[in-house]
Amino acid sequence: MANLNELSQQDFDALAQDVRQRYEDLKAKNLNLDLTRGKPSSEQLDFSNDLLALPGKDNYRTKSGVDVRNYGGLDGIADIREIWAEVLGVPVENLIAGDSSSLNIMFDLISFAFAFGTNDSPRPWREEETVKWLCPVPGYDRHFAITEQFGFEMITVPMTEDGPDVAAVEKLVQDPQVKGMWCVPLFGNPTGVVYSRETIERLAGLEAAAPDFRIIWDNAYAVHTLTDVFPDNPNVIDIAAAQGNPNRFWYMSSTSKITHAGSGVSFFASSVENLDWYRSIANIRGIGPNKENQLAHAMLLGDAEGVRALMRKHAGSLAPKFAAVIGILRERLGGYGVAEWTEPQGGYFISLNVVPGTATRVWELAKDAGINLTKAGSAFPHGVDPENTNIRLAPSLPPLDEVSEAMDGVATCVLLAAVEKRELQ
Amino acid sequence: MANLNELSQQDFDALAQDVRQRYEDLKAKNLNLDLTRGKPSSEQLDFSNDLLALPGKDNYRTKSGVDVRNYGGLDGIADIREIWAEVLGVPVENLIAGDSSSLNIMFDLISFAFAFGTNDSPRPWREEETVKWLCPVPGYDRHFAITEQFGFEMITVPMTEDGPDVAAVEKLVQDPQVKGMWCVPLFGNPTGVVYSRETIERLAGLEAAAPDFRIIWDNAYAVHTLTDVFPDNPNVIDIAAAQGNPNRFWYMSSTSKITHAGSGVSFFASSVENLDWYRSIANIRGIGPNKENQLAHAMLLGDAEGVRALMRKHAGSLAPKFAAVIGILRERLGGYGVAEWTEPQGGYFISLNVVPGTATRVWELAKDAGINLTKAGSAFPHGVDPENTNIRLAPSLPPLDEVSEAMDGVATCVLLAAVEKRELQ
Repeated sequence: MANLNELSQQDFDALAQDVRQRYEDLKAKNLNLDLTRGKPSSEQLDFSNDLLALPGKDNYRTKSGVDVRNYGGLDGIADIREIWAEVLGVPVENLIAGDSSSLNIMFDLISFAFAFGTNDSPRPWREEETVKWLCPVPGYDRHFAITEQFGFEMITVPMTEDGPDVAAVEKLVQDPQVKGMWCVPLFGNPTGVVYSRETIERLAGLEAAAPDFRIIWDNAYAVHTLTDVFPDNPNVIDIAAAQGNPNRFWYMSSTSKITHAGSGVSFFASSVENLDWYRSIANIRGIGPNKENQLAHAMLLGDAEGVRALMRKHAGSLAPKFAAVIGILRERLGGYGVAEWTEPQGGYFISLNVVPGTATRVWELAKDAGINLTKAGSAFPHGVDPENTNIRLAPSLPPLDEVSEAMDGVATCVLLAAVEKRELQ
Repeated sequence: MANLNELSQQDFDALAQDVRQRYEDLKAKNLNLDLTRGKPSSEQLDFSNDLLALPGKDNYRTKSGVDVRNYGGLDGIADIREIWAEVLGVPVENLIAGDSSSLNIMFDLISFAFAFGTNDSPRPWREEETVKWLCPVPGYDRHFAITEQFGFEMITVPMTEDGPDVAAVEKLVQDPQVKGMWCVPLFGNPTGVVYSRETIERLAGLEAAAPDFRIIWDNAYAVHTLTDVFPDNPNVIDIAAAQGNPNRFWYMSSTSKITHAGSGVSFFASSVENLDWYRSIANIRGIGPNKENQLAHAMLLGDAEGVRALMRKHAGSLAPKFAAVIGILRERLGGYGVAEWTEPQGGYFISLNVVPGTATRVWELAKDAGINLTKAGSAFPHGVDPENTNIRLAPSLPPLDEVSEAMDGVATCVLLAAVEKRELQ
């Protein structure tokens, strides 16, 4: 195959005819396939079905004797905190366990800072003329939705193979209105990029003009490998403290894509000072998280090795789907010069860049053929991809044969949109 | 027994000597008793131990087939919403089910209104010069802590036997800075008062100057009778709509003191317009509540009659404790004119008023004798009871014999503080 734009008119016309025929055939199948969200599949959820009957009748005490059925315990129970401290490699006193959603905690952190200011803020963020927030792109739509909700000005930072363009970040944080940054450091959503050690060190050491500059370190894929290799999880709390920025990181994690997506346990790790600030408001917001669910998780997982054993099962289920997506992209699109994609070693997503200007059209063609893709642009603030090139692929939810069928269809749509674009030129 | 202040000096001296001896005897027992919080007892928590193994392995679908293990479903599952709609007598479309804590939702409602404004607000509450909030007293300390956190000016309203002094409320809401009011309409914390139908109608019909005036209707004790009789739960959403104020009530409920206190299901009922506003922000905050816990609750409770059957067990456990407290207060203090107390038909608390000016001293005497009471003043905004007279008694947690022992001690402390006060006069 040669680059589509370099084909002779005759070859191009033949290709165009073939692609149109394929698209008609695709539509005739009346598919109903969904690659929109990073949801675990039924098969993956089954791995943790023991949870549905845990902690088990008459099991309601933690190792230290706390009755998990009653009120109390804002930090969560030691049993699950100790396991997760081991998973992340942070001291247990730097980590608290919450309800099911770390996204809830991220929203609350920003909401508390907005209403009341952080422990390092000269004033509540709502009293700032403008709050600016750094958004590596492509990134996670639900992150951007939070900073949009609070009216922050979102400044995009390009992703590289080593993480966000840290030189750009170093310049941007000289503006005291820049109060924070979204980061997914491991197997990031949607690129799958793993931040390099150098990037992490430089983010920890950033000389930010705002004394209350915070990095939301959403380590959502801390153990979510697609191979036999588990990635390092650098202790950014220590790394930042060593560089004189002990309160820099709000470090998030959860079991959502480890046990059951909607009923997991979330974690928030940070400096003791940051945790004390969070507690001072969270303690007004309520009494504490669901400790029965935490005990159930501690019993299911056992220890960090138990977590890794479970993650190997997930890898066994997910890796063939990722391999299928990448195989089809290579086979159908390789050489035409109409697409580039990431080939991640972990996480939940593949980031696909199609011919600039055609992502929305690809999404539309796929939709008309019964294949739902995440909306084009969704990995950018306000849902606007300035190049209209990026599509996030989420292959986890459907069974393998549907992933393959959907991706073959997506490849056809990518080609057809590229053909249409050349025809208009 | 005669009124303490009317005793002859000789009789008073004899009483004083007797009370001091009793207090020394009390201290010599080295008690360690706790009447501080409205926590259910172990016996009560045992009633719902089936929850610990529910929904049960392989039970993960709702009646309509939703897989509760995965992400999604901001409103909670229909199975539990339908049961609770029946319990409260509201249409299911007016009610959503959340995570364990309704207090969390109350905080969020105020936080969202503060940051963004409600659906009826001309501007976010943070942009108001002052936000004022009506606080019937004595009331719930955690309510007042929320409005204190946001810097609202809390205006106290006296409680009557029919609920808050509604004539006072009618005047206060003519001030457009008054944006809301805390209410616990049934078996209120700590008085046990049940609002009369007239009070409810007048609150629903209040002509408030603020277009976004809200009543947080914390129906925490909706089915928490201490007798055979279950109270009415008027549908305040309808009542308010009929009076032209469809968005007046933010109606809260939860299973916290029905199943397991720390791992229940919370509920938020309101007009569809109010719910839509809440959803528009809650949907940014996260993806949805723990649906496995909701399914477990639906299976445990079955229907509204299942809830009532469970509450009869609670009444069987709690009523003897309340009877013991009231019996001891009558026996030890009746006639001395040193105390008044409520004798509630439901809920978790007894409100005890001691000789004005001595509540803090009673608390301190009890503490020194190993009996922990909720801090004097805690039922008032900022923890300050202007009369220094009110003490909240929470008899649910300790076993019956400890409740009796603690209350006998408390009675001694109340008398001793009264004796000390007369001696100083």
